[in-house]
Amino acid sequence: MFHVEQKKEQNYNIMKLEEVKQLIRSIPNFPIDGILFRDLTTAMLNHDALVCMKDELVKLYRGKGITKVVGIESRGFIMAPMLAAEIGAGFVPIRKPGKLPAEVIEEEYGKEYGKDKIQIHKDALNENDVVLLHDDLLATGGTMEAAIKLCKKCGVKKVYINFLVELDALEGRKLLEQYGEITALMHY
Amino acid sequence: MFHVEQKKEQNYNIMKLEEVKQLIRSIPNFPIDGILFRDLTTAMLNHDALVCMKDELVKLYRGKGITKVVGIESRGFIMAPMLAAEIGAGFVPIRKPGKLPAEVIEEEYGKEYGKDKIQIHKDALNENDVVLLHDDLLATGGTMEAAIKLCKKCGVKKVYINFLVELDALEGRKLLEQYGEITALMHY
Repeated sequence: MFHVEQKKEQNYNIMKLEEVKQLIRSIPNFPIDGILFRDLTTAMLNHDALVCMKDELVKLYRGKGITKVVGIESRGFIMAPMLAAEIGAGFVPIRKPGKLPAEVIEEEYGKEYGKDKIQIHKDALNENDVVLLHDDLLATGGTMEAAIKLCKKCGVKKVYINFLVELDALEGRKLLEQYGEITALMHY
Repeated sequence: MFHVEQKKEQNYNIMKLEEVKQLIRSIPNFPIDGILFRDLTTAMLNHDALVCMKDELVKLYRGKGITKVVGIESRGFIMAPMLAAEIGAGFVPIRKPGKLPAEVIEEEYGKEYGKDKIQIHKDALNENDVVLLHDDLLATGGTMEAAIKLCKKCGVKKVYINFLVELDALEGRKLLEQYGEITALMHY
């Protein structure tokens, strides 16, 4: 009874990814001039779109033996934990410096202006882990590459890489494909 | 078949909240001297603990007519979206300034040192919404109060307030109870 009710509330699978994509709002010149920002918040406030993205991620990653889903702060935290809950994995955050309270490993990466750093708890992953790294959007891939390096430093067995949206023209995939299999639910 | 498999992978309900609480790591003097930081990452990297927290949230908020679950950046993003997906609601983020790309409403609040601000998209909520506000931890309640005010400015019908962990001694509940029903899964 519990499960039946739950499924009914979820309206399982009634929306398709093409429809989710239509809910994504495009905002010119954000955060800086010349960038067309893909705003996923307008999709996520729609329950059916949220469930559609979750279900598509579950379809891609169920049965692959993934032990941890790693989400990159902040927007990677939105889908990574629910995917972890669905596929039998735990959730691990990668955060900006100064946010994680215990011993961390750090990685630096280049951004448009200068450098940035991200951190992971040293004891969050180990050599028994098969990891799915998740973020909302693939642009040049710099942040994700740093995140992958953090997982590798923890000695993980294998990494998978996923994004909700990939900006194909920026060719971030070329940078990342040396590390593991990449998927994206939607493309621009 | 799909659902049976899924439930098996989730090991539904095998962990209890008391056990989840034991997985939370306490770190002295973080982020500043004199604070005993409750680190939930050590619980979230455990799949059974993640599912237990999700299930307990679903039990609390299913059937209340909640249309949007609002998560506060960053740690509020971890559980809020999966709860939204489970109870038939959408997800709305409240973020630090400069992160949300469209038109925002802003609210200022006091912190230990000086002031801080949070923002919500102006069009994310309206007078038809019943909102559950979620964050990971209730200390003094200042951030949550500002978040509630943002929802009220959007004209929402009703607010519920939830935390994973409440630090009872700081009495944040006293500040917030005027706004709506408050729950917390675990207490210190």
